[in-house]
Amino acid sequence: MKKPLAVALIGYQFMGKAHSQAYRDVAMFFPQVTPPLMKVLCGRTRQSLQQAARQYGWEEACTDWRKVVQREDIDLVDISTPGNLHKKIAVAAAQAGKHVLCEKPLANNLKEALEMLEAVEQAGVRHMVAFNYRRIPAIQLAKHMIGQGRLGRVFHWRSVYLQDWSISPHYPLVWRLQRSKAGSGAHGDLNSHLIDLAHHLLGDIEEVIGSRETFIPQRPLPENPRKKGKVTVDDATLFLARFENGALGSFEASRMAIGRKNSLQIEINGSDGSLQFDLERLNELHYYNRKDSSRHKGFRTILVTEPTHPYLQGWWPPGHIIGWQHTFVHEVMDLLLAIEKQKPIEPNFLDGVKCQAVLEAVIQSVRRGKWVRPAGLWKRKRRT
Amino acid sequence: MKKPLAVALIGYQFMGKAHSQAYRDVAMFFPQVTPPLMKVLCGRTRQSLQQAARQYGWEEACTDWRKVVQREDIDLVDISTPGNLHKKIAVAAAQAGKHVLCEKPLANNLKEALEMLEAVEQAGVRHMVAFNYRRIPAIQLAKHMIGQGRLGRVFHWRSVYLQDWSISPHYPLVWRLQRSKAGSGAHGDLNSHLIDLAHHLLGDIEEVIGSRETFIPQRPLPENPRKKGKVTVDDATLFLARFENGALGSFEASRMAIGRKNSLQIEINGSDGSLQFDLERLNELHYYNRKDSSRHKGFRTILVTEPTHPYLQGWWPPGHIIGWQHTFVHEVMDLLLAIEKQKPIEPNFLDGVKCQAVLEAVIQSVRRGKWVRPAGLWKRKRRT
Amino acid sequence: MKKPLAVALIGYQFMGKAHSQAYRDVAMFFPQVTPPLMKVLCGRTRQSLQQAARQYGWEEACTDWRKVVQREDIDLVDISTPGNLHKKIAVAAAQAGKHVLCEKPLANNLKEALEMLEAVEQAGVRHMVAFNYRRIPAIQLAKHMIGQGRLGRVFHWRSVYLQDWSISPHYPLVWRLQRSKAGSGAHGDLNSHLIDLAHHLLGDIEEVIGSRETFIPQRPLPENPRKKGKVTVDDATLFLARFENGALGSFEASRMAIGRKNSLQIEINGSDGSLQFDLERLNELHYYNRKDSSRHKGFRTILVTEPTHPYLQGWWPPGHIIGWQHTFVHEVMDLLLAIEKQKPIEPNFLDGVKCQAVLEAVIQSVRRGKWVRPAGLWKRKRRT
Amino acid sequence: MKKPLAVALIGYQFMGKAHSQAYRDVAMFFPQVTPPLMKVLCGRTRQSLQQAARQYGWEEACTDWRKVVQREDIDLVDISTPGNLHKKIAVAAAQAGKHVLCEKPLANNLKEALEMLEAVEQAGVRHMVAFNYRRIPAIQLAKHMIGQGRLGRVFHWRSVYLQDWSISPHYPLVWRLQRSKAGSGAHGDLNSHLIDLAHHLLGDIEEVIGSRETFIPQRPLPENPRKKGKVTVDDATLFLARFENGALGSFEASRMAIGRKNSLQIEINGSDGSLQFDLERLNELHYYNRKDSSRHKGFRTILVTEPTHPYLQGWWPPGHIIGWQHTFVHEVMDLLLAIEKQKPIEPNFLDGVKCQAVLEAVIQSVRRGKWVRPAGLWKRKRRT
Repeated sequence: MKKPLAVALIGYQFMGKAHSQAYRDVAMFFPQVTPPLMKVLCGRTRQSLQQAARQYGWEEACTDWRKVVQREDIDLVDISTPGNLHKKIAVAAAQAGKHVLCEKPLANNLKEALEMLEAVEQAGVRHMVAFNYRRIPAIQLAKHMIGQGRLGRVFHWRSVYLQDWSISPHYPLVWRLQRSKAGSGAHGDLNSHLIDLAHHLLGDIEEVIGSRETFIPQRPLPENPRKKGKVTVDDATLFLARFENGALGSFEASRMAIGRKNSLQIEINGSDGSLQFDLERLNELHYYNRKDSSRHKGFRTILVTEPTHPYLQGWWPPGHIIGWQHTFVHEVMDLLLAIEKQKPIEPNFLDGVKCQAVLEAVIQSVRRGKWVRPAGLWKRKRRT
Repeated sequence: MKKPLAVALIGYQFMGKAHSQAYRDVAMFFPQVTPPLMKVLCGRTRQSLQQAARQYGWEEACTDWRKVVQREDIDLVDISTPGNLHKKIAVAAAQAGKHVLCEKPLANNLKEALEMLEAVEQAGVRHMVAFNYRRIPAIQLAKHMIGQGRLGRVFHWRSVYLQDWSISPHYPLVWRLQRSKAGSGAHGDLNSHLIDLAHHLLGDIEEVIGSRETFIPQRPLPENPRKKGKVTVDDATLFLARFENGALGSFEASRMAIGRKNSLQIEINGSDGSLQFDLERLNELHYYNRKDSSRHKGFRTILVTEPTHPYLQGWWPPGHIIGWQHTFVHEVMDLLLAIEKQKPIEPNFLDGVKCQAVLEAVIQSVRRGKWVRPAGLWKRKRRT
Repeated sequence: MKKPLAVALIGYQFMGKAHSQAYRDVAMFFPQVTPPLMKVLCGRTRQSLQQAARQYGWEEACTDWRKVVQREDIDLVDISTPGNLHKKIAVAAAQAGKHVLCEKPLANNLKEALEMLEAVEQAGVRHMVAFNYRRIPAIQLAKHMIGQGRLGRVFHWRSVYLQDWSISPHYPLVWRLQRSKAGSGAHGDLNSHLIDLAHHLLGDIEEVIGSRETFIPQRPLPENPRKKGKVTVDDATLFLARFENGALGSFEASRMAIGRKNSLQIEINGSDGSLQFDLERLNELHYYNRKDSSRHKGFRTILVTEPTHPYLQGWWPPGHIIGWQHTFVHEVMDLLLAIEKQKPIEPNFLDGVKCQAVLEAVIQSVRRGKWVRPAGLWKRKRRT
Repeated sequence: MKKPLAVALIGYQFMGKAHSQAYRDVAMFFPQVTPPLMKVLCGRTRQSLQQAARQYGWEEACTDWRKVVQREDIDLVDISTPGNLHKKIAVAAAQAGKHVLCEKPLANNLKEALEMLEAVEQAGVRHMVAFNYRRIPAIQLAKHMIGQGRLGRVFHWRSVYLQDWSISPHYPLVWRLQRSKAGSGAHGDLNSHLIDLAHHLLGDIEEVIGSRETFIPQRPLPENPRKKGKVTVDDATLFLARFENGALGSFEASRMAIGRKNSLQIEINGSDGSLQFDLERLNELHYYNRKDSSRHKGFRTILVTEPTHPYLQGWWPPGHIIGWQHTFVHEVMDLLLAIEKQKPIEPNFLDGVKCQAVLEAVIQSVRRGKWVRPAGLWKRKRRT
């Protein structure tokens, strides 16, 4: 067995918990991976941090991330904090020679994202941005099918990511609704996933034009619900896009779509076939094949749970569905193997930068009321 | 143009209306058919009958079916009455040399059904029983696919026909809930459709065992809701079957399945494929093909609205769905062509008898608590 | 019985056939309507016209629409021709004092549409534009629900109308692919339906920005498949919109979405509920109600076939689904009643103009690359 | 923190792996549980056993279950072996004073099951049978809804459990296809789940009649594919049932339903509502409520991922679906809490016996060709 990688995880809320289970279980389901050492969990509030560390299985708890990223016994730093901390931590970790896994979106703006990319490239460490939906088996299958040419020439990309958790005007002004911490609202949180999947499945986006709205401009303060504060992020952002390959795209992120809980839906139409996906039924991929015999064509519901499907050899027999959390296990597996084998991994910080450039172009297009091309700085970069 | 066939329709309620629209429109959508003459509509209550005749487009109205079936200017007698009148009318019509279309189930018991078959065969007229669901495009497509061997060896037939219109205990004791008029309840009304489709798609049934229940044994009288009368038919009848080809079957008819309005559902599993159908989405057929490439298998939703699909050349472009009533147009078209071309037509009275034999075997199996083989009298008959 | 209205129908292809069945059957299913006289069918090619007239049930056939619209015995002129003839016929019919039903989109551009509106208003005749999807029972139900405030404040309108009939590059350059005849491609043909439904359900559109593409710029000529001609219309047009009520909207029309046959899909999200609709399952409406008890919320599939649902009293018992063509029966019924009772009817030419103004604004927004407000000329008009 | 319970798990294949992840992760997601000690993993083949123990996180590996169940440092014995070993291990464990969790079906026949029940009751230990599907959140929600009377009087239970893994005649004669090891085929493996869920949700079954078939009577031997051996279990077993509460039931288990991978489907119809469930979409429960307003009724798709839904507080935000394996985490959590708090737990060996009695009654009904009542021995027992 190889020497295990020692991990420090910064952040122990929603994403911290999701990442923890991945480190904890990855080698049980994918024994080709050396089990990582769950070394330190970092956070600000000592008591709840210590409780989380015990509960999730981390050896130590520490409230000072700066110390942690310097520790010699740490190999990989996992950043699961709000976006406003990503850059500082990532740059420090890279400079300390640590591999870095960073939650999405990579940063709160393009400038920060570019600095982060610069830092990891200079340090020569492995870097990954946690767009976990690339590693849904159905999405991987879609990727393979597109790669095989099964869709032919692609004409359309159609995507929405709809939630409804903040639809009540009584919902408080949490950090995700503050630009200073979250960078943006539905746009950075949800459109970032759609953009990354579009990049992954169809390629680069040439230009965009968008529209955004904050339907509920003021909300109760978490610390004092009788007072209200200003919502500084968008509730919803939509945009149209043109891909470099000529396809037309549409994107929509909203937290005000009542009844839609975590509804990332994608449809791709090509000259030879179509694909459709819905995250709330993530074990299924819908496929229309133009070449099916003429009277028997129709969208197939592929239950992506066969041993021949991506990542499924680690799990259960056909029809025994997996859940949302398993995508993180796949992500961590691929990252650990990449570090061990010193191979590149995607999506990395370059992908994070590209996503950020599109996010930012959309925001500019909203301001200017016209089409905007994503900044092309990153195009000069080569993949490392 | 050929000399048009003159039709007399007995009954002007639900089925009478459905058949009327078929005669009225068949030649508009299927110009290969000579438009029939809608000669006489028969019923008991003069005033509403005359209103219906005008509304549906019949030339005359007559309250005496005995006279009508004797008229020289009538070629085809269509029996859309409750079951207790089927035999009398059908025998009289056949003896008068008329072709006969009779609503399903053919009769209220096997004895009557056999007499009816005898009568039409002796008279040498065309005869058809109105199992209209055979002529749903998706069912015809299923039939073709099975005929082509696409399912391989068939293992399973699974079928339900669920409704809920009589679920309230306040629903009155209408004719469909009286054995003297309807013969039976959900069994004759709904299982008859399932049995006929099973015969059509899979072949003969070898033996059956059933269970039935009248959940609401007394109901208000229609003429005096303060008084109650006894419900003399079943609310639900289920049975298991073995087909001659070795397949196992299950059947269920119920009028007490709340939320299910007209839910005839069928699934067939064979060694090479499966088919699934739901009448409430009658334009769709679901198909699983074992021979699809290994990572891309799944149930397809075939939208059966292509010009190459059965009967669709008469209707609209792909995706412009048809409705329930159109099945009667197909039925009438095929019957009129069969009469014109002096060719046999199915399902005919022999099919009606076969269905009746299974219905009756199920009732006997309920009484005896063991498996019963449908009476085989009709096996001596050859198809005419 | 009232004196029947005499109808002249111009055009006997797809729409002509659909309208014909509506006139033919409307009074059978909705006896409150006096059956119309199907007087004259007009078209250019005498032989096939005569055949169609016989088949559909028209008394006469005539190849000169100019004569027909002048005939004293005609009350209603129905225009089911390609768009380039709409204006001429409508203006002539109105000047001759005829009521006018015109297929959608009302005209090939806004200028023509305004002239048509002017003509019918001056003539004081009834006018209707045939956006038949307003009269789908599920859409009417949605309209009632929104009117009752069941959705609360509306945040989102999301709509696509996807087809695939012209996806093959071998598909010929038919009239629908020529701007001179059709005005535009997917945009006028399909987005017009979406825009009209949005107007109907949510109200006026304030501004738009769009994107469009002709993926297959050249196609074989119908008369000589070895030669190719230029496609002068769009294959797909997408646009974002802002409604006057503050909602964000997205629209997409494409004929290049393989596997989607007639897939008009709408979703509306409000503060209290959501609605979803798909034309390929037009008997269903999906509804999420925020006020359902907390553990039992979810999208309901309402099977819109109850006698209490809009238009259903004319048809069949619950669960016996209707088809696409029935929307025309509803349209014709409402028009005939409006004429008889001298009441206004919607969607009328003003609605047609409003739709045209949005269609045109989208085209301008594509040209200019920025947001455009639909021309507001029609706002000065009052409803007649 | 309480003293942790020490577990010995016998069996490390499919079920052993599923149970292992549950012990491993239960306290991470449900911190109210003291993390159990994963003490010993037992199996027959030393090398692969040791590999599994390391991979799954067990402290020790041991090839002799007899020794293990005697060890003083073991509190709970988990039996995840084929059915032919259940009785021996369970009796020995109980006699050694260990709590016992046993995979389903409890035994290979009723006699063994009764002996097992006797043993655990005499020993006074906690006992549970691993019908994990009771602890699917949607099933728990269904249970609560039925308990609240939301369905009213229940008329119908309709259930199938369909798989297709052994449909190829080339599939070898594995232990699951041998009666000596598995007891029965689809019947014991799949119908046992349906029966337990029926008991859980509707109550006791009064009588049954069934039909069964082995479609492929001979199969290649695993050790020598050129030779064939006799299949001694059923490929499919169907039966009808009557419940003590008067409801009618149908059950079907098959491994020959091509395209159905793990398709446990249930529908329950009552006087006031219906429920529907499909294991392949286990995060969803479909509910029809008679009391919804009249024009807005329909089956709701409840996405059972809200924090107020059963077991969901341990997992993720709404719409982030869980997988099949999570049911074992719930099972283990409830068992560990029951042991800690010395409270009864269900389903226990009495439930296992009841299920076995129905399984056996079905087999007898097949042999005799008539209705059979499940043996009522267990009725004398009281719940402990």
